[in-house]
Amino acid sequence: MYSFICDYSEGAHPRILEALVRSNYEQAEGYGEDEYTRKAVELIKQRIGNDNVDVHLIPGGTQTNLTAISAFLRPHEAAIAAETGHILVHETGAIEATGHKIIPVKTEDGKLKPSQIKTVLDAHTDEHMVKPKLVYISNSTEIGSVYGKFELEGLSSLCRENGLFLYMDGARLGSALCSEGNDLTLSDLAALTDAFYIGGTKNGALLGEALVICSDDLKEDFRFHMKQKGALLAKGKLLGIQFVELFRDNLFFELAEHANKMAGIIRKGIEREGFGFLTYSPSNQVFPILPDRVIDELQRNYSFYVWAKMGSGMSAVRLVTSWATREEAVSAFIEDFRKVVSMYR
Amino acid sequence: MYSFICDYSEGAHPRILEALVRSNYEQAEGYGEDEYTRKAVELIKQRIGNDNVDVHLIPGGTQTNLTAISAFLRPHEAAIAAETGHILVHETGAIEATGHKIIPVKTEDGKLKPSQIKTVLDAHTDEHMVKPKLVYISNSTEIGSVYGKFELEGLSSLCRENGLFLYMDGARLGSALCSEGNDLTLSDLAALTDAFYIGGTKNGALLGEALVICSDDLKEDFRFHMKQKGALLAKGKLLGIQFVELFRDNLFFELAEHANKMAGIIRKGIEREGFGFLTYSPSNQVFPILPDRVIDELQRNYSFYVWAKMGSGMSAVRLVTSWATREEAVSAFIEDFRKVVSMYR
Amino acid sequence: MYSFICDYSEGAHPRILEALVRSNYEQAEGYGEDEYTRKAVELIKQRIGNDNVDVHLIPGGTQTNLTAISAFLRPHEAAIAAETGHILVHETGAIEATGHKIIPVKTEDGKLKPSQIKTVLDAHTDEHMVKPKLVYISNSTEIGSVYGKFELEGLSSLCRENGLFLYMDGARLGSALCSEGNDLTLSDLAALTDAFYIGGTKNGALLGEALVICSDDLKEDFRFHMKQKGALLAKGKLLGIQFVELFRDNLFFELAEHANKMAGIIRKGIEREGFGFLTYSPSNQVFPILPDRVIDELQRNYSFYVWAKMGSGMSAVRLVTSWATREEAVSAFIEDFRKVVSMYR
Amino acid sequence: MYSFICDYSEGAHPRILEALVRSNYEQAEGYGEDEYTRKAVELIKQRIGNDNVDVHLIPGGTQTNLTAISAFLRPHEAAIAAETGHILVHETGAIEATGHKIIPVKTEDGKLKPSQIKTVLDAHTDEHMVKPKLVYISNSTEIGSVYGKFELEGLSSLCRENGLFLYMDGARLGSALCSEGNDLTLSDLAALTDAFYIGGTKNGALLGEALVICSDDLKEDFRFHMKQKGALLAKGKLLGIQFVELFRDNLFFELAEHANKMAGIIRKGIEREGFGFLTYSPSNQVFPILPDRVIDELQRNYSFYVWAKMGSGMSAVRLVTSWATREEAVSAFIEDFRKVVSMYR
Repeated sequence: MYSFICDYSEGAHPRILEALVRSNYEQAEGYGEDEYTRKAVELIKQRIGNDNVDVHLIPGGTQTNLTAISAFLRPHEAAIAAETGHILVHETGAIEATGHKIIPVKTEDGKLKPSQIKTVLDAHTDEHMVKPKLVYISNSTEIGSVYGKFELEGLSSLCRENGLFLYMDGARLGSALCSEGNDLTLSDLAALTDAFYIGGTKNGALLGEALVICSDDLKEDFRFHMKQKGALLAKGKLLGIQFVELFRDNLFFELAEHANKMAGIIRKGIEREGFGFLTYSPSNQVFPILPDRVIDELQRNYSFYVWAKMGSGMSAVRLVTSWATREEAVSAFIEDFRKVVSMYR
Repeated sequence: MYSFICDYSEGAHPRILEALVRSNYEQAEGYGEDEYTRKAVELIKQRIGNDNVDVHLIPGGTQTNLTAISAFLRPHEAAIAAETGHILVHETGAIEATGHKIIPVKTEDGKLKPSQIKTVLDAHTDEHMVKPKLVYISNSTEIGSVYGKFELEGLSSLCRENGLFLYMDGARLGSALCSEGNDLTLSDLAALTDAFYIGGTKNGALLGEALVICSDDLKEDFRFHMKQKGALLAKGKLLGIQFVELFRDNLFFELAEHANKMAGIIRKGIEREGFGFLTYSPSNQVFPILPDRVIDELQRNYSFYVWAKMGSGMSAVRLVTSWATREEAVSAFIEDFRKVVSMYR
Repeated sequence: MYSFICDYSEGAHPRILEALVRSNYEQAEGYGEDEYTRKAVELIKQRIGNDNVDVHLIPGGTQTNLTAISAFLRPHEAAIAAETGHILVHETGAIEATGHKIIPVKTEDGKLKPSQIKTVLDAHTDEHMVKPKLVYISNSTEIGSVYGKFELEGLSSLCRENGLFLYMDGARLGSALCSEGNDLTLSDLAALTDAFYIGGTKNGALLGEALVICSDDLKEDFRFHMKQKGALLAKGKLLGIQFVELFRDNLFFELAEHANKMAGIIRKGIEREGFGFLTYSPSNQVFPILPDRVIDELQRNYSFYVWAKMGSGMSAVRLVTSWATREEAVSAFIEDFRKVVSMYR
Repeated sequence: MYSFICDYSEGAHPRILEALVRSNYEQAEGYGEDEYTRKAVELIKQRIGNDNVDVHLIPGGTQTNLTAISAFLRPHEAAIAAETGHILVHETGAIEATGHKIIPVKTEDGKLKPSQIKTVLDAHTDEHMVKPKLVYISNSTEIGSVYGKFELEGLSSLCRENGLFLYMDGARLGSALCSEGNDLTLSDLAALTDAFYIGGTKNGALLGEALVICSDDLKEDFRFHMKQKGALLAKGKLLGIQFVELFRDNLFFELAEHANKMAGIIRKGIEREGFGFLTYSPSNQVFPILPDRVIDELQRNYSFYVWAKMGSGMSAVRLVTSWATREEAVSAFIEDFRKVVSMYR
């Protein structure tokens, strides 16, 4: 049984484990004030090409989202998110638990458009309603789609004109930035968003996300918020060491490229058999729409999610690859896929 | 420069790193539903000798406290804690941020007594005041003292008679249970408290605390609270693997014993020179009261906190040992201590 | 300029003011422990015909909703509401500010159906999502529609089968219960819901809502929640006196009947000219769809909200009547309406 | 049985009731956007002599405190209050329920001193602790003491030097400003605090407090916070009408003077018999320390709180007067007091 369930099935890239072993007995300052964390922050800033950002290392994605968004908003302010947005659906009301409403927007492909945000603003007219203040986007999105530079510029302009913060959930940012057709860089993100995070957990780390705060207005006292939300690890160097490994050379991007390459093989293999997809997804998640019989048969040897019933005996499934996905496993899957499909034709 | 600053300066016990390396490419279920986590939970239950508890693995201590306490209390209910309690002082208002007041109690040695809790209950008479509902204690406490079985039984009885939950912060539980004179077992804790946690971060793990929920009333839906507070790691096996190593034999207790032994050497070395201590502390934290000149001199080669100014040119300092503290370093410290003291005499 | 903007434009029914004057110098216990409040609670229980309910008097509707819902739910639990629900749209995120998500449901007429709730339950499958726990309905709804007994029984059954609380916002409950075709009684509400409130502010009082808690599970310590949320008036008798007047005879219902009657005249007058309505609304809110030119002309002499642009030069407007609406004003409005319509035909 | 329990036993000053009757059928805008509220705000600004303040009318004191403080603070920021402070003791954790810790300070007389606040600031050194940001004081205090101008200037300077907001709870501000020896004016308060409120409920109104926001930084979007916390009354004119009556001439101050005069008679009558007081209290609350036997006897005909057991058969009691306290009742009380005392001598 091989798993395409998610991109956090395996542990960490071996270089990360080696670095942990190597540094194990060094005594370090706690709570992210150690040399490794300092070095990681430095490397990330260099990669972004912008020294005027704050970088914080946080154990997980939900924690990053809830710590950042609750720090950025006043009590009456709300976030806007796509209906598929992770914070809206799969974080057990973590944002609302900090007191903030999330305004859902129906989208076609998981991506928000300026016009949709404008519609929300127009509908929120007075103090009887929350004040929309932060736009939450994911890149890549929860359904695998990826923002282009032109799209992000449009969102950024609209947000700045209307006093909104633009926040990007980058749980799968590596995959997005390495996907075919991508024209965004980390540097662009620092210029166009107010804050974003670079996901480590889903791209080679044991755990860890690097939150980048770009807007000066949002930087003050952020470590207080981290501590209050339980996001300040005592052994902070655990995160520092990992991000040093990911960013001291090109490792972070190489891992993402591998994941994307594996997903691409799957996508092409499925396309070749004539099946379509839920959405155009050039990143490490693929959502083919397949006959239920085919799905049942495949699930004997492979694990993956059935994402949505599409009617007429068809369902969309989600196949996820990662830095650790083995090329032989992918080839075997496509092989098996062809067999199963031909069997049911 | 050798550090006695805290018990989270180093990484993890080598067996833990080896287990991480060994299991690295295994594909596991996410979010703590993997085999390692299941095994860790099983081992902890066995060690407690009680199958009717729920065990959850959580990345850090503040997160464990805030997730548990906010899950256990209704909005108008409050916690009672010693004035020195970690949740009251050093968690940046994490509990209040979830909506709950903490009622402080002045203590002599960091430990709460039934009579003190009774006084709080008597003072809270109607709906214009919060309703005290949970008693928070730390074992060992923030100033190194340790609860005895008789003391815990007293607290437990009082809590049960008055409908209060008894919750024990066990960030340093290993050290407490292995301290000289301790007569409590994990099994006692499960019988006498409603919930407690077994600290991994400060006793050999990279990160991780094992929350044990003993009272049936507090068990329902706990994983929802974990997810909502960002306490559910995607790669949950990272915690599972560590607790398996700590509890598949006696490692957890051996590490704590080592830390205590190192602290004992320091304590005796300081006593021998005729100095006293802030509090009686048989665990891995020692709080000697020393002349400021001696402290300044020691700080050239050793790092540790100055805990409190005591007047007359004296201060209490905090020296902390851990599973990783080297015996030679401790010996060297005591040697240097003697020299410095004799110099200033 | 006559206002049909809302049902809280005027003060209180004269009997209420007289009672305030009469009792002014009596010394009363504070915080709702006075004789008037006790009497009001008694009268409401009698009217409900059920002594096993708790009744609390609270200054306003938003406050009642936020106090009740936050008291009833645990942190990970969510409310379900129609997309038009007052708590979802017009309370500035008051429920979310207490930590709870509201799950929106698209409806045709502002009323929730069991099947829609079932769909929400089916979509919430695990701890990565909030746990739906409370169904919020309004009667009459925000767009004037009214629940029938059969409908409420359906909701009640579904809620009980699935462990959900059923909560009814009764800001306009008087009008609902006195509307044409209504077959619900206060007694039914106590039997079918877990809690509901009887709106005073919009039916003859200066301020005040009577929250009725029917389910034993939700009663404990409710006054603590009221105090914590600022819902316990020092001069609580102010609310008690008003509800005594409203319920010591039939006044509450007479006032609602008057409001409905006035709305009925308007509705019929508009129908007679051949116009339709946004929704079937037998209560004291009427939502005719009129030509924008007609609306502009009417607004010279009457104030009311334009509710929604309908396209093709038509808009839905909201006309609200109350216990204080004068019949001559209504007649004059219909007269003017006819003139304006004929002018633009 | 005559009550000296509190200053909210009776209704409202007759002029207020007359104004309510007079305006009853006027149609007004809802939610505080009516002419009466506008007029009240204008009158209060004139009385303060400062047009650059924002004034909001809010139903009750706890609600004013929780709405203001939660609007003013970011999540990691805390309030500092005297141990006797109303928000700390008698509001059921209302401030903590909005997420903020209150740091208690032990005082002698219920008043905070700059040096005490400095001590708190010095103890809060890093992000592991909350950030003290707002100083909460009450004037008059919960034990009847009153701030002088020199004291308030000291607090104000310290707060400004340290970036703290100074907030005054004025539930009994009328009495404080009219107390013997007072040298503060409303104008001073606007200059020295960042926000304060003028209590109506305890000084002649049915309900209502006027929050004055002085600091520009705290003004933005305040009505959103009011709505979210349920503090925006639908029939907002109810508050407007009352504050117009209190401030269109000297009524507010005349009522407070009466209350103080009544308290003065009680104080002097008790002093004359040789008894002392818990604290120096020139306002409308008096806290004599009396023999328990005397207290028991007095309680046959008068109701009042026993405030604190003082030992040796003595207790402090609280006697409160108000705008409505009758001079004959006070004279009778002192007469009876003398008799009881002589009986037990």
